[in-house]
Amino acid sequence: MAEDMLASVKTDPAPGSTKLMKVPKPKPGQGEVLIRVRVASICGTDVHIYNWDEWAQARIKPPLIQGHEFAGDVVELGPNTSHVQVGDYVSAEGHIACGVCYQCRTGQSHICPNVRIIGVDRDGAFAEYVAVPEENIIVNPPDLPLEIASIQDPFGNSVQTVFSADVPGNYVAIFGLGPTGLMSVALCRAVAARKIFAIGHVNEYRMSLAKELGADLVLRSSDELETMIANETDGRMVDHVLEMSGNQEAFNLGLKILRPGGGMHVLGIYPSPFTVDVSSDIVTKGISLHGIHGRHMYEDWYRMAGLLTSGKFNLKPVITHRFPFQEFLEAMEVMASGNSGKVVVYME
Amino acid sequence: MAEDMLASVKTDPAPGSTKLMKVPKPKPGQGEVLIRVRVASICGTDVHIYNWDEWAQARIKPPLIQGHEFAGDVVELGPNTSHVQVGDYVSAEGHIACGVCYQCRTGQSHICPNVRIIGVDRDGAFAEYVAVPEENIIVNPPDLPLEIASIQDPFGNSVQTVFSADVPGNYVAIFGLGPTGLMSVALCRAVAARKIFAIGHVNEYRMSLAKELGADLVLRSSDELETMIANETDGRMVDHVLEMSGNQEAFNLGLKILRPGGGMHVLGIYPSPFTVDVSSDIVTKGISLHGIHGRHMYEDWYRMAGLLTSGKFNLKPVITHRFPFQEFLEAMEVMASGNSGKVVVYME
Amino acid sequence: MAEDMLASVKTDPAPGSTKLMKVPKPKPGQGEVLIRVRVASICGTDVHIYNWDEWAQARIKPPLIQGHEFAGDVVELGPNTSHVQVGDYVSAEGHIACGVCYQCRTGQSHICPNVRIIGVDRDGAFAEYVAVPEENIIVNPPDLPLEIASIQDPFGNSVQTVFSADVPGNYVAIFGLGPTGLMSVALCRAVAARKIFAIGHVNEYRMSLAKELGADLVLRSSDELETMIANETDGRMVDHVLEMSGNQEAFNLGLKILRPGGGMHVLGIYPSPFTVDVSSDIVTKGISLHGIHGRHMYEDWYRMAGLLTSGKFNLKPVITHRFPFQEFLEAMEVMASGNSGKVVVYME
Amino acid sequence: MAEDMLASVKTDPAPGSTKLMKVPKPKPGQGEVLIRVRVASICGTDVHIYNWDEWAQARIKPPLIQGHEFAGDVVELGPNTSHVQVGDYVSAEGHIACGVCYQCRTGQSHICPNVRIIGVDRDGAFAEYVAVPEENIIVNPPDLPLEIASIQDPFGNSVQTVFSADVPGNYVAIFGLGPTGLMSVALCRAVAARKIFAIGHVNEYRMSLAKELGADLVLRSSDELETMIANETDGRMVDHVLEMSGNQEAFNLGLKILRPGGGMHVLGIYPSPFTVDVSSDIVTKGISLHGIHGRHMYEDWYRMAGLLTSGKFNLKPVITHRFPFQEFLEAMEVMASGNSGKVVVYME
Repeated sequence: MAEDMLASVKTDPAPGSTKLMKVPKPKPGQGEVLIRVRVASICGTDVHIYNWDEWAQARIKPPLIQGHEFAGDVVELGPNTSHVQVGDYVSAEGHIACGVCYQCRTGQSHICPNVRIIGVDRDGAFAEYVAVPEENIIVNPPDLPLEIASIQDPFGNSVQTVFSADVPGNYVAIFGLGPTGLMSVALCRAVAARKIFAIGHVNEYRMSLAKELGADLVLRSSDELETMIANETDGRMVDHVLEMSGNQEAFNLGLKILRPGGGMHVLGIYPSPFTVDVSSDIVTKGISLHGIHGRHMYEDWYRMAGLLTSGKFNLKPVITHRFPFQEFLEAMEVMASGNSGKVVVYME
Repeated sequence: MAEDMLASVKTDPAPGSTKLMKVPKPKPGQGEVLIRVRVASICGTDVHIYNWDEWAQARIKPPLIQGHEFAGDVVELGPNTSHVQVGDYVSAEGHIACGVCYQCRTGQSHICPNVRIIGVDRDGAFAEYVAVPEENIIVNPPDLPLEIASIQDPFGNSVQTVFSADVPGNYVAIFGLGPTGLMSVALCRAVAARKIFAIGHVNEYRMSLAKELGADLVLRSSDELETMIANETDGRMVDHVLEMSGNQEAFNLGLKILRPGGGMHVLGIYPSPFTVDVSSDIVTKGISLHGIHGRHMYEDWYRMAGLLTSGKFNLKPVITHRFPFQEFLEAMEVMASGNSGKVVVYME
Repeated sequence: MAEDMLASVKTDPAPGSTKLMKVPKPKPGQGEVLIRVRVASICGTDVHIYNWDEWAQARIKPPLIQGHEFAGDVVELGPNTSHVQVGDYVSAEGHIACGVCYQCRTGQSHICPNVRIIGVDRDGAFAEYVAVPEENIIVNPPDLPLEIASIQDPFGNSVQTVFSADVPGNYVAIFGLGPTGLMSVALCRAVAARKIFAIGHVNEYRMSLAKELGADLVLRSSDELETMIANETDGRMVDHVLEMSGNQEAFNLGLKILRPGGGMHVLGIYPSPFTVDVSSDIVTKGISLHGIHGRHMYEDWYRMAGLLTSGKFNLKPVITHRFPFQEFLEAMEVMASGNSGKVVVYME
Repeated sequence: MAEDMLASVKTDPAPGSTKLMKVPKPKPGQGEVLIRVRVASICGTDVHIYNWDEWAQARIKPPLIQGHEFAGDVVELGPNTSHVQVGDYVSAEGHIACGVCYQCRTGQSHICPNVRIIGVDRDGAFAEYVAVPEENIIVNPPDLPLEIASIQDPFGNSVQTVFSADVPGNYVAIFGLGPTGLMSVALCRAVAARKIFAIGHVNEYRMSLAKELGADLVLRSSDELETMIANETDGRMVDHVLEMSGNQEAFNLGLKILRPGGGMHVLGIYPSPFTVDVSSDIVTKGISLHGIHGRHMYEDWYRMAGLLTSGKFNLKPVITHRFPFQEFLEAMEVMASGNSGKVVVYME
């Protein structure tokens, strides 16, 4: 007789269509562990699915339990697991890599072309329980707060982006002040950037959060940006740009404010192809441009644990809203509004 | 009483307008040396100036002696030189960096924003004598053939591009089979690429040269390219693309045939901005894209000397035409035709 | 009813004590595959075990089937395998990493502190059949000759060492002309080293093999070496040293002939600690020294496949002796004599 | 008629023999500028010369004005200078590189084999005026405090060492708690190390400074260190060791506490060669060991300016004693005692 659990289920291929309901509690399969979820957080991807945009229509097969950011306790081990124990306090990498392709066999499983994502391609963590391959489990430091443990997956995007650049003592510009942008501001501050230029668009709320997290200047993306940056850097321009907005004007403006030899690190996803001045903005300036996806498995997770326990910085201001699981739909609406940092949901 | 010398002079701001004529022999200034030119070679840039295209109209101030690729002997030292000697067999880096900017002070003088180029911004080497800052002088290995010594400046572009990638044992595609593309084919062969895909457009002449220099497959840029590459690499796709064509279709096709995690190395200059699918072709695939300009000063020159004396490969097939200086205008016409590899001119 | 197979068994904790005998054919366990061995080759490690030296006495628990270098065909799959197929033509990485330690989770499983080695810590490939974890299986290119496929494990040591250095166009010295040294000579030649100095001790046989494989100069380790290298490099000294001899004089001499800023890459294992002039030979010269162990799993294997199919070089001269399996003890004696390159044994 | 200035002169080849006296004010030569010194600081090297140890006897030719750490104002330009202006607030890189060797031409002038050092091989900054090549001048940020500007040369040693490692989020051990060790503690704290283990020998004074600058644990070098580090890192051991003590036990202990794959970064200078267990401590653990000398010219200076103006950390506690120039000999005695951090001397 199967036990039930409470879960948020995307029931139909349509906008909204998300219901809190009872569903069977999952069984951990070969090499999987079962986790009692204590906190989960909402990703921009979850909003895309909730709103049922073009990307979601092509990728998602309802019914689906969403959610890939969480923290909880291991309660059951499936067959053929090895090192994780019942009782471990864990989070998980959301990308389940295939393990056998060229990328997986050469330390690049974060860009495995056969990846399946928790809460996207299989049931996820907006539920009382979630089953996850042991391979993907991260055992958290015992004193890591639950809600910080939950946002490690997106924090890992920031970590990969920031450490793709060479920040200490250098000028950095961060475009896009959503949660990953904000966490990147905090990271750049924590590793002693010379000046951090946080560049947003219209959202006052997030621009003020950027200031609180350590930005030296919070600027609006505009035509005068190039001149302002020249003044603020004595004509050198910025050494690295972190593009996290997914806005094509930001991408091109980012290239303009880079010094010759600078680095462009792009996590943003753009709705469509767009025009780039490759010759003037990349080739003759000797720019290096890096596409960033996911998190290095699992170097970035170890670095995260180290950063979060270094006592050097505080991600807490990034979390702006907290809800009990019963109010999950309200949580989703707040996240969808854009007037928030990270939104977390407590299952307990 | 000033001596005269024979020089090729771009006399007027118009297409053609190049004349062989007597002009005063230059005097080496502070920190400069005077070189008797023995061989010079013609760069694509020289064709742009000769044809007086938009770029040339904006940059060039006639009268000008063009030419920055050459080899010859030092015949006179200006004041305040230190290590170069009269009689040295030399070539020169064509980029005269300012020496005091951020780039110059941090090992990146190849992308100095204040660069002045020999034969572009000051008189160059299509003449019996040329004055060059001692800083830019490269003393050649004594047994390096004159015409090979002359083409080191463009070979250095290929060297920077190829060593920006990780070629040994890997799949490489080279777009653009002009002289730098052809030299890159030879280089990739010399460092044991797994397979070299040389991708041209319409020019049979250059496609056959690519084969001779070591390409495994010489292909035309086309819609089927992606499928062909998948077949030739067992579905892995290429590890690195060297984009040397300056053609926007080649750039975008290059991104398509890269494996996730691959590297794109761009030396090509494009006539105008163009549309790129940044999300699908760069970000989610975790691609690194490197703009390449000039030559590392002077790491790439030392590596070149080493490669050219390694006995491992032969650049000679890249040189397809040789002219005496008296027939300089014919040399220029051959280069402008596109039906050539490298064209060299013998002053002696 | 268990089937039998012919195997070479180290029966007792004593020198020699190796017998060809019938033993039960192994069964592939969880996640393992069974391979019919067609060719195996003998490693220096096998000689240590055969001779029962101090290291062997501390590590080895007879009875043991030795052997970790081989090529063969998959004939049976154990439970829970995924991608390898019966009939695949394979070799294997000899290091079985634990998969859960910091190193294994961060792309450094080649230095997993919990490693177990095939033919050292569990039964190996000097037998008609060997069982190996699927994780460790390498599917070979179909046209790779059997005996070349067999020596990939030690070739991988050379690959890791050579690509830890920056060889193309640079001066390289290789100390130690056993099989890994000889294969490194061939590799450095294949990637266009400026000059290769192969430095041996007393063994004429191997010094002549080094010449055949592409060394520019084959030298004896001696007091005059420093002066000779200065002359051969115009005073620059060598850019990289590959230390593969396990001889302490070679190590220290290697540091002396490095230029300031050069790289020292050490695969050699030394019988005991020894004196190093750290200040003069490493610190003030700004040397980087890299300890090399095993092969990157599995980047180095992919690179190997690429190199071996590039048509750029030929490892065949490294294999100097071939025996049928029945003459295994003679094969071992030849390898132990030091007067050989690689010794291979044919099971079929 | 030459003007005079007050200077501290090492008059004779003997211990002590340092006198404050009037000497002729220097004239800036070709490409040099003259600086009015406002603050100078004392380096360990200055103590070696003061004490006239073996190294000093071999290198130094009295009479000599010592001192290479300073800050001041440019008061006069020699012939053939270009960018520095009279009135600029400056410090200087102490290593005068030759500019023409392989190292200088390839971005490695910090290890130029022909280097001449200010205050060691030519007159230095323990004087009212010092002449320095313009090439070596660093124009300081206007708000950088004089005494912090003065200690940039040794701070640059720490910067090169710390950024040779990968510190953020990782475990780091620093051996040697003299000024460069202490500044490295501050740096590692400023870039969010997971834990900093500061390891001293007997000096309580410096061990307490290390705590103040951000060390998580200040330990004595001892036999139990390995076990303690294992406990503090959950068995992982440290990721990077910065060896700044010049003590051979520290060097070997540093290797022992490194995790497989870790990095050893050595700035310390050892009085003599010593025994190292290369096989067990470097090769089979896959350690990378980096000799560190001087400062990258001038990347490290730009990074320093950025770090010092980032508002992220405070070097002030490293400066423990301040003297007027008239009490220079007392300042030297304090520095020689070992019971100090950095000692600075005010000329004004």
